[in-house]
This record gives sequence, structure tokens and C-alpha cells, in this order.
Amino acid sequence: MEPASALLLRPAFSCRHKVGFAHCDPAGIVFYPRYFEMVNATVEEWFETALGFSFAKIHGDMAAAVPTVAINIDFRHPSRLGDVLEFRLYVKRVGRSSIDLRIMAIPADDPDEPDRFTMTSTLVFTRKDIAGSVPWPADLRAALQHQINKQDHHDT
Amino acid sequence: MEPASALLLRPAFSCRHKVGFAHCDPAGIVFYPRYFEMVNATVEEWFETALGFSFAKIHGDMAAAVPTVAINIDFRHPSRLGDVLEFRLYVKRVGRSSIDLRIMAIPADDPDEPDRFTMTSTLVFTRKDIAGSVPWPADLRAALQHQINKQDHHDT
Amino acid sequence: MEPASALLLRPAFSCRHKVGFAHCDPAGIVFYPRYFEMVNATVEEWFETALGFSFAKIHGDMAAAVPTVAINIDFRHPSRLGDVLEFRLYVKRVGRSSIDLRIMAIPADDPDEPDRFTMTSTLVFTRKDIAGSVPWPADLRAALQHQINKQDHHDT
Amino acid sequence: MEPASALLLRPAFSCRHKVGFAHCDPAGIVFYPRYFEMVNATVEEWFETALGFSFAKIHGDMAAAVPTVAINIDFRHPSRLGDVLEFRLYVKRVGRSSIDLRIMAIPADDPDEPDRFTMTSTLVFTRKDIAGSVPWPADLRAALQHQINKQDHHDT
Repeated sequence: MEPASALLLRPAFSCRHKVGFAHCDPAGIVFYPRYFEMVNATVEEWFETALGFSFAKIHGDMAAAVPTVAINIDFRHPSRLGDVLEFRLYVKRVGRSSIDLRIMAIPADDPDEPDRFTMTSTLVFTRKDIAGSVPWPADLRAALQHQINKQDHHDT
Repeated sequence: MEPASALLLRPAFSCRHKVGFAHCDPAGIVFYPRYFEMVNATVEEWFETALGFSFAKIHGDMAAAVPTVAINIDFRHPSRLGDVLEFRLYVKRVGRSSIDLRIMAIPADDPDEPDRFTMTSTLVFTRKDIAGSVPWPADLRAALQHQINKQDHHDT
Repeated sequence: MEPASALLLRPAFSCRHKVGFAHCDPAGIVFYPRYFEMVNATVEEWFETALGFSFAKIHGDMAAAVPTVAINIDFRHPSRLGDVLEFRLYVKRVGRSSIDLRIMAIPADDPDEPDRFTMTSTLVFTRKDIAGSVPWPADLRAALQHQINKQDHHDT
Repeated sequence: MEPASALLLRPAFSCRHKVGFAHCDPAGIVFYPRYFEMVNATVEEWFETALGFSFAKIHGDMAAAVPTVAINIDFRHPSRLGDVLEFRLYVKRVGRSSIDLRIMAIPADDPDEPDRFTMTSTLVFTRKDIAGSVPWPADLRAALQHQINKQDHHDT
């Protein structure tokens, strides 16, 4: 558990996803694997717009990938068809070849409501034809580090 | 085949979908069932924003549904990770309990490029616990008819 | 429309898919894009087990693909959570670089019930880094042609 | 961490999933949200065949659900198109209104290879129109408890 104050940090990135018909199960709530598609889209959008590394570039020119190697998630409240969720992404740690993220989804129209889920995840950098993770390229690592600093500056 | 002039009609509705990692297959192009998720999201957004009938309302308060009963589609060009597609929806016919749509996806950044796909589909109105289709409610039918008129006005 | 007798042909391939939670929408019936995932899995299994060309081999060693370029489908009856469907695949035509298929899904436990959907589709053979379709390799084309003959033999 | 001996327990349930085209991403490996669809299908099959409570019955007649409220997962090795995975499900604890599971996926053809992922998850029992979890019905709870005992008997 982190201190509650950590939750006050400005997220490195946020975007909205609306719960659509495709996301919902026969119980009328989001089928949880669909949350992970939204999470992946959030990370993807963050890489492209905030870091300057689109997944098209990473998977294309760079012949690399950024697979998720660990997830820890608590689903706190169900989301229903039509709900608009704000996904907030925080960078917790930038390692040599990995990053630790915290991502939460909250009701966009009422941010004081409890979160729908909070997760932490670890992503690593890999290159095609090399087993295991490899160090971040210098420019990508600098961009990631900048995201942490941005959060810290806001915090003080 | 319709005359080419029909293609000049203003669509009743259009929206954009960006091809993300989740949509793409090992060949690096959109896995076609994912196109249908985008199509469904397009129809859903159209019902909510242009017709005033959200799927949450239709499936909730109205205890109804709008299933797709027929599709005819030509996939003309593959779409790749990062492509931004404009989905254009045209209403071809409003029946007693059905509608015929034409939906096409074109590259948003270069609308003169050929379409990625063009489809026609038929959707019907159904009510929970009643087998088969039932007539559109009057207000929903009026809203659908207005969409056709809107297209026609533009055409002349 | 084909003559009804054509329906009596033995399918070139059949397999079963059980409707699971992941396939169903808030109305409790199969979300139609999920049908196409089942159709794709059926074609994939057919290529591997009946033709001897797994998708792993086609997309790997052969650096090729078999994209779907056209679909015409009628959804006749909804499928519900727990339904077991038998997918029947018929080869209608083998072209130089394409095949025409007919695929239908019927309730496995009661084959006399009407089909849930019947579709026709066209698939083409493509090679990485070559735009458009290319002729089937001779061995794959022979395997496809054998599927048609197998159907015909049964018919007489 | 549990003692390694715990890993020797016979799983309460196991089933196989083959990695298909639909599961794979542009890097040619399983897109992780698709693993969760396979996990969900595994739990669903276990409920139906081992516990005698199909999801059709739970979501239908019983007007109930078994949502996942927490997941902790480590993805250890990527899975590729054509891989056949054995999913092994272990019951760790049966609570008043929840269960803790451990689920792992290993290569079916070479069970001595390392697992592709190991996860723990918590599921709860809920009833439509009641917020939060409710106690398991007695018969379902007995069936769950029997699964734990089955594992223990094997262990000694």
C-alpha cells in the first residue's frame, strides 16, 4: 500500500473510454477481459502521444515490443453499458528494461465516486528474435523518465 | 450496384476509429471480426447521438434490441496498426420493423483513397420475450426517417 | 439461391463450438462479431486438419496469408449461452488464387432445427510484401480441389 | 509464495485451449486479454462439468453471477499461434461468498516446460439486484468444498 497522498499525483496520462455493447456480458456489466483491451489501448495512446513512440513504430521500424509481464488488479465496482470511464495512468518506476505502472478507471462524470478498478502492471522492452527483455533505447528511456519527473513536479 | 452518384450523398452519420494493437492479427492487419466491433460501435454511437436512443436505453428501459440479421461486405484493402478510419453510415431504407444501412470505412487522412470495406446490413427491432421482429416505436421510426430525409436534402 | 439438394452434400469439414460467456451480449445472445471468430477458427482448423496447412505454417514458413475478402451472411436465429453449434463448411469453388466457401451453424443437438446462420465467403491467397492475391501453391490447391471432389463423391 | 510441494497437488480441473489466429497480436504471440478469455472459459467449463452449475443456469434460473474481483498474474513466457496449452485450475480457499483460485497454463505437449503464466484470482457470488457479494447457495458451496477435498486426498 502506498500512502494516500500518492493518489493525489497528477497522472502521467489520462484518456476516456465509453463502455459499449461489445464490452458487456449477459449480466449487463463489463466482461473483465474487455477492461484489459481498454487498458492496452490506454498504454498504446500514452506511448504515441506522450512518449512519441507509436506502437506502429515500435512494432514496425524498431522491430520491438512492450509486453506486459505482470498484473495485479482489484475490480471494485462493475461498469455498465454507457458508462464513460476515465483511465488514469501513473508511472511508478522506470527500470533498465521495464516500467511499473499504476492504472485506474474512474467514472468520468463523477470523479469522486470510487474507482472501478485499480491495477499495477509491469511492462518490459523486447526485441524481435532476442529472448527476454532488453534495455530501453536511450531516447525512449528518457521519455519515460520525463513522465515520472512531470508527476513529481506536480506533487511538490 | 447503385449509381456512383449515390456515393456522393452526405452520410447520415460518421465517426472515426483508430486501428489499435487489439485489432491486428499476426499478419499486422485488422482481423476482420474486429471490423464488425467497430461497425457495431458506429451504429451504437449513431443511435445515441443522432437518433436519441442509446443502447443503454434500448436494452434497459425499452427491454428491446436492434440485432443485425444480414450483412454483405467486401473487404477491399487491408488496414494496418495506426490507421485512422472514417466510418460513414448511410440509411438506405426504413421498413416497418427493419432498416437497411450502408457502411463504409475510408482512410480519414486521405478520403480520396479507396475504401477499406463497404457493407450493407439489415437490422431489425425486437422486444425481449417476443420472438421475431416487431414494428419500430413511432418516435424511433420518425427519427430514422429523418435521417433519410437529411441525406436527401443534401443530395439535391 | 442454390437448389435445396445442394444442402444435402456432405460438408468438407465440420466442428463444434459451444457458446460461452465471452460470446454473449447484454441481451444474452451471441454478439455477432463473435460468430466470425468461431467461423475463423473453423476455417483455421479445416486448413490444419483436412488440408495439412496450419495457419502457423502459412503465416510462418510460407510467409503467406489467407484473408477473407467478401462475406454474405444471414443470421436466422439467435444463439444463447450454453448452445452447442455445429459449424459445417462446404467448398463451392476453387479459383486460381481464391476459394468460395459456404459455412452454416446449426444446433448440434438437434440438426433438424433451422440453421443459426448461413454465410458464403471468399478467401484469397496472399504473400507478404506482394500486394493483392497470388495463385495458390500447387500442393495447397490440390488439397483444396480434393475437398470439392470429396463432397461430389458423396453426392452421387 | 507457497511451498513447491503445493504445486504437486492434482488440479481440481484442467482443460486445453489451442492458440488460434484470433488470439495473436502483430508480434505473433498471444494478446494477453485473450488469455483472460481462455481463463474465463476454463472457469466456466469447470463450473458446468465439475460443479454441476453451468453459467447458463447461474445467469438464467438462479439470476446470479460469479464475477472476478481480483487477479494477480505473472506472464512468464509468450505463447505462439498453434501452441496447445493445458489450463490447470486449483481451488485454494472457499469462503462464505468467495473462492480463491490458482490457474496456470502449461504447454500441453511438454508439461515439464515452464508455465506460460500463473495467476491467482478471487471470484464472488452475486445476485441480480443485490449490491455486493452474497453467500454461496448451500449446494454450490458443498460442490466447491468437494473440489478442495479432492485435491487434498490426492496430496496425501
